[in-house]
Amino acid sequence: MFFNPNSVAIVGASQTAGKVGYEILANMIAAGYKGKLFPVNNKAETIEGLKCYPDLESISQIPDLVIIILPAHIVPSIMEQCAKIGTKSVIIISAGFKEVGQEGRKLEQRVIQIARQAGIRVIGPNCLGVIVPANHVNASFGGSLPHKGGIGYLSQSGALLAAILDTANSNGIGFSKLVSIGNKADVDELDLIKAFGEDPETRVIAGYLENIADGNDFVRAAEKISHDKPILLMKSGGTGAGAQAAASHTGSLAGSETAYEAVFERAGIIRCFSIKRQFDFAQAFANQPLPASNRVAVITNAGGPGIMAADAIERYGLEFAVLTDETMKKLAEGLPPAANVHNPIDVLGDALADKYEFAIDVVRNDPNVDAILVLLTPQAMTESTATAEAMARASNEKGDKPFFASFLGADKVAEAIRVLVDNGIPQYDSPESAVLTIKMMVNYVKWRKRPRRVVKLFAVNRRKVEMIVEKHLRQGVREIGETESKEILEAYGFVTPKGAVAATADQAAGIAQQLGFPVVMKIWSPDILHKSDVGGVRVGLKNARDVMDAFDLMMYRIPKKMPEANILGVLVQEMCGSGKEVILGMNRDPHFGPLMMFGMGGTMVEVLKDVSFYLAPLTAEEARQMLVNTKTYKILVGTRGEKGVDIDVVAEGLQRLSQLVTEFPQIQELDINPFIVGPAGITPIAVDARMSVEKI
Amino acid sequence: MFFNPNSVAIVGASQTAGKVGYEILANMIAAGYKGKLFPVNNKAETIEGLKCYPDLESISQIPDLVIIILPAHIVPSIMEQCAKIGTKSVIIISAGFKEVGQEGRKLEQRVIQIARQAGIRVIGPNCLGVIVPANHVNASFGGSLPHKGGIGYLSQSGALLAAILDTANSNGIGFSKLVSIGNKADVDELDLIKAFGEDPETRVIAGYLENIADGNDFVRAAEKISHDKPILLMKSGGTGAGAQAAASHTGSLAGSETAYEAVFERAGIIRCFSIKRQFDFAQAFANQPLPASNRVAVITNAGGPGIMAADAIERYGLEFAVLTDETMKKLAEGLPPAANVHNPIDVLGDALADKYEFAIDVVRNDPNVDAILVLLTPQAMTESTATAEAMARASNEKGDKPFFASFLGADKVAEAIRVLVDNGIPQYDSPESAVLTIKMMVNYVKWRKRPRRVVKLFAVNRRKVEMIVEKHLRQGVREIGETESKEILEAYGFVTPKGAVAATADQAAGIAQQLGFPVVMKIWSPDILHKSDVGGVRVGLKNARDVMDAFDLMMYRIPKKMPEANILGVLVQEMCGSGKEVILGMNRDPHFGPLMMFGMGGTMVEVLKDVSFYLAPLTAEEARQMLVNTKTYKILVGTRGEKGVDIDVVAEGLQRLSQLVTEFPQIQELDINPFIVGPAGITPIAVDARMSVEKI
Repeated sequence: MFFNPNSVAIVGASQTAGKVGYEILANMIAAGYKGKLFPVNNKAETIEGLKCYPDLESISQIPDLVIIILPAHIVPSIMEQCAKIGTKSVIIISAGFKEVGQEGRKLEQRVIQIARQAGIRVIGPNCLGVIVPANHVNASFGGSLPHKGGIGYLSQSGALLAAILDTANSNGIGFSKLVSIGNKADVDELDLIKAFGEDPETRVIAGYLENIADGNDFVRAAEKISHDKPILLMKSGGTGAGAQAAASHTGSLAGSETAYEAVFERAGIIRCFSIKRQFDFAQAFANQPLPASNRVAVITNAGGPGIMAADAIERYGLEFAVLTDETMKKLAEGLPPAANVHNPIDVLGDALADKYEFAIDVVRNDPNVDAILVLLTPQAMTESTATAEAMARASNEKGDKPFFASFLGADKVAEAIRVLVDNGIPQYDSPESAVLTIKMMVNYVKWRKRPRRVVKLFAVNRRKVEMIVEKHLRQGVREIGETESKEILEAYGFVTPKGAVAATADQAAGIAQQLGFPVVMKIWSPDILHKSDVGGVRVGLKNARDVMDAFDLMMYRIPKKMPEANILGVLVQEMCGSGKEVILGMNRDPHFGPLMMFGMGGTMVEVLKDVSFYLAPLTAEEARQMLVNTKTYKILVGTRGEKGVDIDVVAEGLQRLSQLVTEFPQIQELDINPFIVGPAGITPIAVDARMSVEKI
Repeated sequence: MFFNPNSVAIVGASQTAGKVGYEILANMIAAGYKGKLFPVNNKAETIEGLKCYPDLESISQIPDLVIIILPAHIVPSIMEQCAKIGTKSVIIISAGFKEVGQEGRKLEQRVIQIARQAGIRVIGPNCLGVIVPANHVNASFGGSLPHKGGIGYLSQSGALLAAILDTANSNGIGFSKLVSIGNKADVDELDLIKAFGEDPETRVIAGYLENIADGNDFVRAAEKISHDKPILLMKSGGTGAGAQAAASHTGSLAGSETAYEAVFERAGIIRCFSIKRQFDFAQAFANQPLPASNRVAVITNAGGPGIMAADAIERYGLEFAVLTDETMKKLAEGLPPAANVHNPIDVLGDALADKYEFAIDVVRNDPNVDAILVLLTPQAMTESTATAEAMARASNEKGDKPFFASFLGADKVAEAIRVLVDNGIPQYDSPESAVLTIKMMVNYVKWRKRPRRVVKLFAVNRRKVEMIVEKHLRQGVREIGETESKEILEAYGFVTPKGAVAATADQAAGIAQQLGFPVVMKIWSPDILHKSDVGGVRVGLKNARDVMDAFDLMMYRIPKKMPEANILGVLVQEMCGSGKEVILGMNRDPHFGPLMMFGMGGTMVEVLKDVSFYLAPLTAEEARQMLVNTKTYKILVGTRGEKGVDIDVVAEGLQRLSQLVTEFPQIQELDINPFIVGPAGITPIAVDARMSVEKI
């Protein structure tokens, strides 16, 4: 009903040009709206020749859509009228709600309460309205009706939408729908992404968001929709959540933007950092087929821009298509001798449109080419418009390979650019922007081809974890100590080093004898977080004497350094085989849930911040990808003849952890540091672990 | 004479519109050229009302500038005429020279030979010409005369220049000079950068280059000129040199672009990756004062763009200005209650131009603000043109703080944007582009403030190095072996480990006794590059028996693995104290000379490619900066209580090496790997070294 209403009532319609209540009515009329329009205004007889109604109840039929423009404090009473007459769709343009403070928030709650009870859906309040070019609906004060097109746009900023509309209108960019969601008191980004997902007119979903309300639902829906339609989002403003959670390793490494990045990656959402980039991308996705792979052919009439394109192709990690001999032979036959028939194909500065058309036709049939970028500089002989028309014919003819254009200049190529845009060929103000767009399409194709997500469930001892977690929650203890943390990990299939806490030197020696030498010793105190900083860690102790000496030295020295620490003894542990130290972790994002972390251990992780994140639950492939995404991955797989570690076993560790934090939402943070891993056949050991829980 | 000629002869002037020979003449006339024009064409009486001359000699005076448009093979004879009559400046537009192959290359050499003998300076051949708006000179076929302005532009691609001209003309961007350098057979980028440097009309030097001819001269000149005028360059195409030089560590890490990056950094050149970015930057540099520091204030009439600007400020590492209490108080007095008086200052969606003007005036006087970015979205009440005029008044009034604008939209802000551009206020199509430009200005200011370059000269034993280098050159041996490489390093003040090569196990034990235990042993063979891969390195040998065992094991095992290797014995060396391993290196770039390298040692350097480069000779500050520029710098200075290494000593090593390769240009490549460094007081050791020399 929002997008194709048969009748629209405008409550607060005004006779005064310039007023929002007039502009929306005028925009509806100017858009050529085909349904019935009911201006509601108890002080006017007619507005723009349309009969005015004193109130909603006086209208002889139930309007499909009601637009409210009256001051905020009157809106609840209008909503009650809507409920009474049975309208199901309302756009509230009026500001003065949640955005102005407590008073407004209450008003907004009241409005939504009425809507919920009556089964009314509401867009807004504090929004610009809704535009549907194909249906001649311009229920907004954002600007004149744009062209019909494949882009569905939603914006959390009305002002930005107005600017976008102005830019799009002057560049001939078309839309399926534009929605300003304002305070999104009812209809939010999730509803719209779902609606756009099902809308046959929308080929690309684009939007500007400042926050996302229902994190988990959003991820699930977006991931599904992304498969059919690319989603391009500008997301501004940090979550602020990361900073709070900086207590743990994982927390401090997960910046405020990390969760959003993980969400976007998981859901295949293409993130844009400016309006310009967003429309650069959107026009290609909306109008061109996806490239099969990443091999780009460039056709140009000047060397400079060709080299700039080549540089960008290298910089963005695409491939420069290697033309077949047949292609090059054909090109040589049809182009002047001085022309370059290798990629980038230079048709020369005096090339007319026919040479471009010929080259395009030859290159598009080359099996080594996935995407075609046509560059043009307006030189003396250049037929820019005819060249654009040739491209349009080629692009419209058959649809297996995408076309991109970068016609450089302004006035001299303005007509040509209009031809390109009208024919759905994306045009870029630099070769670099065109190449970046191709890169985004290639990334999207890769994402779509990723294997089906199957999350493996391991056999675990859930009951054991439940008991420990419940005990802590009951006692109000947030941090789970090392011993119980390890018990939890063992319940989920991790191996931890054997050992026990000794209260005396003799006891320590006895424990060591039982474990077998060498052993590791660690000071045991709830007050000492960084044990090695106070000399509280000794490794490789080879006999009973060394163990007893170490015990006594710790007991003598550490209390001097930390007189207030409560020292319970010394932990004597089996020594873990040498291997690589990595960190597995989790930090729970308030919006999106558990964010898994992987990184190399030791000081490297702190210095390089070389960690990767992904949303739980993880598939085997995703867990593996988390390893691959670190810069130090090559060290893990082994360099210069050194044997690599068992990557699958590390990935399995991440999956098991992912299962643990998914099954126990009470766990807020978790680190295994270090997790010692070796080559295939060696069981990895969770040497140290910490976690915290909270009531949910 | 190129820029302000009193008389211009056009050889090859044509009567036929569309021909280059006509277009250039027509462009000169259309530009309102004030001097005398002499069309030279022996088949026409007059062209465009101007008397035609059959040849240069028939002209009654010596033209200050001759433009040649005739076919390439005729050009040498015209050049001879130029020499005869005594013209000193020639622009050769004609193509068909070096760019078409051997034949053309010879023609070009002939042309330059004539020019050199006669003292004629030549721009071109194969170029678009020269444009000087202020002097009404449009000696080009690139397009109509652009506005007068502060940007001096040079382009190695004529076609690109034509596109730039078209874009600039339609956006009202002004230039001091535009030069198409074509094949740059005589006048090249260096000449023009120097000329622009001295030109009072040019405030910013910008250009597009595909290569740089005189590397060292270019760096020196550019560094000097950059201090007064920013240089903004697009540089496309790799040098290809890096790939060749991939034999050494340094070579393989120095990509083809590394030398250019080092040059740009040293010379303070701002690199641009697209025409759009280049003009984004150039307009600000040409028309606005430099910011004192990096604190940006944002004024907006909508929240969304304000947040986008804030995000970009954070992303680019600038600071969000914290307004003084006084500023905020004043803002609160003059703006509506709902306005945000914290940065970003939101004057609200219904703000008229006066609110903007008020806010700009208050904010510009805040001592915490270095740069002011004004954002505008065209909303119902917005007075975009009046707001632009208000900005223009503020910007013209006093010149201590730079202004930037991002008026979003198109038609609704077109007039406002014209006002901004006409008043020298740079306008950006997104807040992000504006912020990036501010970042570039801040970087430039930092570069200008860098300390004066003083290269320290160490007392060294040059004679020793001369002998070794000369011996190798005489014998035609490129690689200098480990022993002599170390002698060279010792001559330049490096300490290398003591040791000797043993031929028998007994000898090995004897050498070890003399050195003192523990020792290191390394297989000694010119054929074994990666000693440790074949078990050819043993460390920490504590007594004579271990040394003898190690000797015999190497002699037994290694020939089995590498039967063809010529094994000369085993090197027995003192064991170096533990410390951090780093690499110092040099790779000589064919254009720019010695490129110094620093990186962390071990497998890390290969995996992370965590290295930094800089052009020799190095100052102490530059050497230090090379360390700081690596990601692993924090590991060097010490993390988590671990003692850091003596940074100054490492930097001194780089300076000494820089002196060596500057004094010995024969040295082509050089690596010290590892260079073991410890905390202050510990002498670093150059454990292993290799270098290669070439006749120069």
